[in-house]
Amino acid sequence: MADGHTEQGAAAAVDEGRLWGRLMALAAVGARPDGGVDRPALSMQDAQARSLVAGWARDLGFAVATDPIGNLFVRRAGRDPDAAPVLTGSHLDTQPMGGRFDGAYGVIAGLEALHAMNDAGISTRRPVELVAWTNEEGARFQPGCMGSAVFTGALALETALAAVDRDGMTAREALAAVLAGEPEMAIRPADAAVHAYVEAHIEQGPVLEEEGLPLGIVTGIQGCRWFAVEVTGEAAHAGTTPRARRRDAFMAAHAIVAELRRALEDEADVTRFTIGRFEVEPGSPNTVPARVFFTIDLRHPDAARLTDLGDRVAPLAGSAAGGCAVTVTQTSASAPVVFADPVLRVLRDAAVRCGVPFRDLPSGAGHDAGYLAAMAPTGMLFVPCAGGVSHHPAESAAPADLATGARVLAEGLVRLAE
Amino acid sequence: MADGHTEQGAAAAVDEGRLWGRLMALAAVGARPDGGVDRPALSMQDAQARSLVAGWARDLGFAVATDPIGNLFVRRAGRDPDAAPVLTGSHLDTQPMGGRFDGAYGVIAGLEALHAMNDAGISTRRPVELVAWTNEEGARFQPGCMGSAVFTGALALETALAAVDRDGMTAREALAAVLAGEPEMAIRPADAAVHAYVEAHIEQGPVLEEEGLPLGIVTGIQGCRWFAVEVTGEAAHAGTTPRARRRDAFMAAHAIVAELRRALEDEADVTRFTIGRFEVEPGSPNTVPARVFFTIDLRHPDAARLTDLGDRVAPLAGSAAGGCAVTVTQTSASAPVVFADPVLRVLRDAAVRCGVPFRDLPSGAGHDAGYLAAMAPTGMLFVPCAGGVSHHPAESAAPADLATGARVLAEGLVRLAE
Repeated sequence: MADGHTEQGAAAAVDEGRLWGRLMALAAVGARPDGGVDRPALSMQDAQARSLVAGWARDLGFAVATDPIGNLFVRRAGRDPDAAPVLTGSHLDTQPMGGRFDGAYGVIAGLEALHAMNDAGISTRRPVELVAWTNEEGARFQPGCMGSAVFTGALALETALAAVDRDGMTAREALAAVLAGEPEMAIRPADAAVHAYVEAHIEQGPVLEEEGLPLGIVTGIQGCRWFAVEVTGEAAHAGTTPRARRRDAFMAAHAIVAELRRALEDEADVTRFTIGRFEVEPGSPNTVPARVFFTIDLRHPDAARLTDLGDRVAPLAGSAAGGCAVTVTQTSASAPVVFADPVLRVLRDAAVRCGVPFRDLPSGAGHDAGYLAAMAPTGMLFVPCAGGVSHHPAESAAPADLATGARVLAEGLVRLAE
Repeated sequence: MADGHTEQGAAAAVDEGRLWGRLMALAAVGARPDGGVDRPALSMQDAQARSLVAGWARDLGFAVATDPIGNLFVRRAGRDPDAAPVLTGSHLDTQPMGGRFDGAYGVIAGLEALHAMNDAGISTRRPVELVAWTNEEGARFQPGCMGSAVFTGALALETALAAVDRDGMTAREALAAVLAGEPEMAIRPADAAVHAYVEAHIEQGPVLEEEGLPLGIVTGIQGCRWFAVEVTGEAAHAGTTPRARRRDAFMAAHAIVAELRRALEDEADVTRFTIGRFEVEPGSPNTVPARVFFTIDLRHPDAARLTDLGDRVAPLAGSAAGGCAVTVTQTSASAPVVFADPVLRVLRDAAVRCGVPFRDLPSGAGHDAGYLAAMAPTGMLFVPCAGGVSHHPAESAAPADLATGARVLAEGLVRLAE
């Protein structure tokens, strides 16, 4: 077995067809008729995806384990069993109308890197671990990045497990059902040391494609604040109740959103302001709505600006609610993240050694790497995706670009683990 | 048995406690913890309510039958079996957050009138029939007033039965399940002659209570147009997609609603404009919405004004949709209705003979009587309800007022049947 100086071998051993084949096999789990993927966190589809990855890992001789929040770990042992591992991975859950690459790519690219190290006969001093974080998307259970937030101590395990989905099921119940499908899996403690973390991901934006580059070295992640807004009015008959006598929760919510748009939609188009859930009760055509619930996803790369904009949400909502009651709750907040220079240097060196052109760029999306950055030196690699489209069934990426990313990842992991 | 000249006897035989007791027994079917009622059309709760009414009717010796759209008929025979019947009734379905009196009162008041005629030993030349119309509310299956629309030929039976609820169940399937619970019930043909129709109902507005009057003679119903609006954009990642690159179905729908509010909210507060359903897909906090569906309930007492306002919906929606696609479909339309003078005269006379003060007033809500008016001379009676509140669990009415309405109804029915 060769030592850590044969990194070129790991990159060379990355197999584009094998990587693509595993990605497509994974995309079949929760496949939508429109070509996308619907694989909610801790669903039976998620369980099936975990089993698929665990099976591939076991076939390669790697140890597989989970932790109390359900993060899935695959361990390729190092020469020093006491050394903190180098970690790589991403997530297996998707948006309801999600694609085949968001999250899945980082997991399968990580597995490909471990597989390539085996094929190239490489040993590393540190263990290299692949991780699939639980519930990154936050679509079914809030907050998102649940697995990495618990792993890094940013979120209490009990709080995470108490999260409830729209059908009233807790994350605890859903996780138990998922783990019941793998009764022989080892459970490892929640806390673990990490030497470094690298996450590969599709860009989910247009920059790399527009510039014709196959790789991005990600310098950080813009900040994000989530809010839940609840507007309470009173149900009334649509035919008999004059506007002056209504406490119409829909019209109040509409006025609140109008105020928020005026305050948050910037001409420079830097602020990201999204209302993704908006639910009206009782939801009958001829009943004045009694209650509206909606979410706000607010992002900005500048920490001070994000604080200022987010702090205006509650006062604006209160002043625009008219006769209705309104409550605004911040459900999650992450400050802008700057990734670690030493990791970024290793990744840039790896790209150079592999002969892959790249550029530095920030991430518009949040990632589990944002939590990991608070715990260990962290970096990310982006590969291009078609049209910058993501969180959509049409999400697409080229097999050659995906393999290029996996090659640089394998190179970087071997170097970090030595 | 006395003849038709003993109407005073029918009014005198109305029993306030019996009427209230039946109303409360009915309110227990589909009761909500907050004191309201949730009894969707053609649900198992609806089936239970029908069985309750049918059982009371059979105990009184009346024949019970249903027709192909599930309208429930209770027949008190007249001396002339060939004479077209006088019809009275209302509906048993409720809004999801509905009350105990809307619809239920008209059915139970009609039953009380028939019961009182029995107790007073009155015979009438014409049969007097009680009817519970299927799906008046339109909350589960659209359009509302389904049973009376089919009965009067305004809606094709096959179209009505093909209506689909949110869970994908058809009205045909739901009706079959309801009728399966009463296998011995006679099925009568869809078409039947009607001599006159009278519907008793709570006002669902504030006028009678404010003026301290126990009774309203309803002169007509304001017109109503329903629209379904579908806005189609494209799902995208909330963190990475600049506003300029989004086709955000929620923000487009928000802009459409803003235009509609500007155009339809009149200072005089005569127009009724309600958005009661508003659904966003995929409904994930960090995904730009791909699709919004919402309903518009638009009402006005003036036919020309209603036509003009309604005809502005589609052009306004189209011009405000930005980069999204929008379709506007009119799902139902009813012109303002003017009730028949001869029936109103009989009802006013009945009120005078019973010593009940009243006023004429229009109906802000739609009713099955609106369809019946196109087929036979029709009128309505209103009784006060607390605060004008309706389509709400807090809906409330005084037992004495409800009995007063039933007395005038019994008087009027006997006169119309003679």
